[in-house]
Amino acid sequence: MREVAVLGVGQTKFGELWDRSFREIGIEAGLEALVDAKLGSGDVHALYLGNMASGSLLSQEHIAPLILDYAGLVGRHLPAIRVEGGGASGALALHEGYLAVASGLYDYVVVGGAEKMTDVADATANQIASATADHEWEVVFGATLPALWALIARRHMHDYGTTREQLARVAVHDHEMAGKNPLAHYRNRLSVEQVVGAAPVAEPLGMLDCAPLSDGAAAVVLGPLEVARRHTDSPIRIAASEVASDTMAVQHRADITALAATAAAARRAFARARRAPADVRVAEIHDAYTISALLALEDLGFAEKGQGGPAFEAGGFGPGGRTVVNPSGGLKAQGRPFGAVGVAQVVEIVRQLRGEAKERQVAGATLGLAHDVGGTGATSVVHLLERVN
Amino acid sequence: MREVAVLGVGQTKFGELWDRSFREIGIEAGLEALVDAKLGSGDVHALYLGNMASGSLLSQEHIAPLILDYAGLVGRHLPAIRVEGGGASGALALHEGYLAVASGLYDYVVVGGAEKMTDVADATANQIASATADHEWEVVFGATLPALWALIARRHMHDYGTTREQLARVAVHDHEMAGKNPLAHYRNRLSVEQVVGAAPVAEPLGMLDCAPLSDGAAAVVLGPLEVARRHTDSPIRIAASEVASDTMAVQHRADITALAATAAAARRAFARARRAPADVRVAEIHDAYTISALLALEDLGFAEKGQGGPAFEAGGFGPGGRTVVNPSGGLKAQGRPFGAVGVAQVVEIVRQLRGEAKERQVAGATLGLAHDVGGTGATSVVHLLERVN
Repeated sequence: MREVAVLGVGQTKFGELWDRSFREIGIEAGLEALVDAKLGSGDVHALYLGNMASGSLLSQEHIAPLILDYAGLVGRHLPAIRVEGGGASGALALHEGYLAVASGLYDYVVVGGAEKMTDVADATANQIASATADHEWEVVFGATLPALWALIARRHMHDYGTTREQLARVAVHDHEMAGKNPLAHYRNRLSVEQVVGAAPVAEPLGMLDCAPLSDGAAAVVLGPLEVARRHTDSPIRIAASEVASDTMAVQHRADITALAATAAAARRAFARARRAPADVRVAEIHDAYTISALLALEDLGFAEKGQGGPAFEAGGFGPGGRTVVNPSGGLKAQGRPFGAVGVAQVVEIVRQLRGEAKERQVAGATLGLAHDVGGTGATSVVHLLERVN
Repeated sequence: MREVAVLGVGQTKFGELWDRSFREIGIEAGLEALVDAKLGSGDVHALYLGNMASGSLLSQEHIAPLILDYAGLVGRHLPAIRVEGGGASGALALHEGYLAVASGLYDYVVVGGAEKMTDVADATANQIASATADHEWEVVFGATLPALWALIARRHMHDYGTTREQLARVAVHDHEMAGKNPLAHYRNRLSVEQVVGAAPVAEPLGMLDCAPLSDGAAAVVLGPLEVARRHTDSPIRIAASEVASDTMAVQHRADITALAATAAAARRAFARARRAPADVRVAEIHDAYTISALLALEDLGFAEKGQGGPAFEAGGFGPGGRTVVNPSGGLKAQGRPFGAVGVAQVVEIVRQLRGEAKERQVAGATLGLAHDVGGTGATSVVHLLERVN
């Protein structure tokens, strides 16, 4: 397999982008990534696009050629392929782009992720997002994504003594980080008291434990590592791209306080890259709900089982910590345009590894991790990215 | 790149499968393909699943891990990835499975395609299928897939003298072929008079020019060609897997009597395989509407531009013809479970190349072609498959 590098990155603002269409934001991110990679439209060989639910949200399927078309790139009749795995759609698209370059069939590939969540009512968008859980065994009985994650939180609190305040600290951290991210959906600071006191969504999770519904798009350009120096002074190698799955329904898992798919993807990724969690200085982890982040810390190997809450509370993952998580603000504060998330995470990690993250810069980062989850963990994707010196 | 072979195939009956769920048909096809490839569930490395619109049709996204889960294969936390490109979703999933094996990252990959179209009202299903055209520039103005294909048919008739009867002959042929296919949705014979006299859908296309809405699933198992003999006496090599795109909206094309994406995919596929259209003895081509098949014959290089109608009428593509098309009955008569179509086409070609097609067997077939289209041609996929002696 050929070694694959990220040559360029692009991202729109995340938020309620009511004045911009799906195709507009998709194009903006992709073209920014191409310019960043010093590539013209004539150099691209294929497009992969991660998206969760444009059919239900926008009455538009078949969106990969749509974006290629409206980006003005249709003349060369390139392959344009959409990939879907709920909220992990963007990370899966990146995996497919990685395979496409690694195989040798395509040289330069644009991987985009895009979602437009706010053109429908919030209740509708939440219902559509819950289609990433098991419809026949969970959703028809009234379970929604936050309700299922709330069950996970309750059990984690019961088994390990995780506290309500520890959950809240995830949101506080994310908002603090997003304050330095001009693309973030929310940049206001929060206190633990505000998070704990917010209106309940599914107890113990409240409004401020849940990532928002956002619009947004992100893109990266991939190419063979051997030619990366032509495009950038800071090539970022994809050291591992690993996808894993688990049962759709939470009830079918032996232990609901861990995501087995995350643990499997992380184990494989670290083995392939011959690195360990302690080598990772910066990570973007899945924090759709505050409990999601604590599970991720444990499942990825950054904290002992059951100790995500205390470890987070002790400051191990904030600025100056051993591993800084979610410098972008994460899903909670940078925002959650479902299909875009996995690509946006990699955009942030690349900026960190290049030393281009400005106020958010994590010092000395040479190895970064991106972790994306679909639904309640039936899909989990882990990417390890490494600066090439 | 490693050479890739099809090691096993499976397919459910196509039709109105009201007593069976999406997950049941997906599993049936996949397990049949595994048994055919003499593989156990412990041998699989990844699942790719082609599906157009399970979110809109069934309120269920994130279906690749769902199928893996209910197939009992979730324990090893394998990658499970859904691919979407309208009616070409299955063929795109095959392309991704091909890349996955060719790259060397995965050895044995199951590629499935599945769609459940009949659990909602016909009008709803047709509206959902039309989401594969350009929503903002076509569908909101009232255009549906058959209406757009009818425009293409009218122009083809105007420019090249294609007749209503020539269109009808495609449907007559497909039903005749499907009579020998026990998995087909429709096995009744039709006459040209019946097709021409059927109730209009979008003139000149009538009810019997349009493929039905079907439920169904199909699957193939892919693996490295070098180990194919362990699994089958008749390894089928993927000689080419090519994807191409075009504008979403028909109105943005310089010439609407041809699908530029099909022509591009075919050109690349024949170049890669170092073969020509005349080498192809058996082909499954996209015939969602009778006009689609005539365009395909021309765009794939089986007939001169504008001569698809007369060439078809002259019997060049029926039993005993130079290239036999749609021995399965095609989308028109075998059926049209959108995301399953591209995989089912390859299942039929593999059975033909192995000499296992029974009553439908095309004599002396060693090279076969599968051609799948999304929407009105914004995506087109061509696979060339070759028997290895």
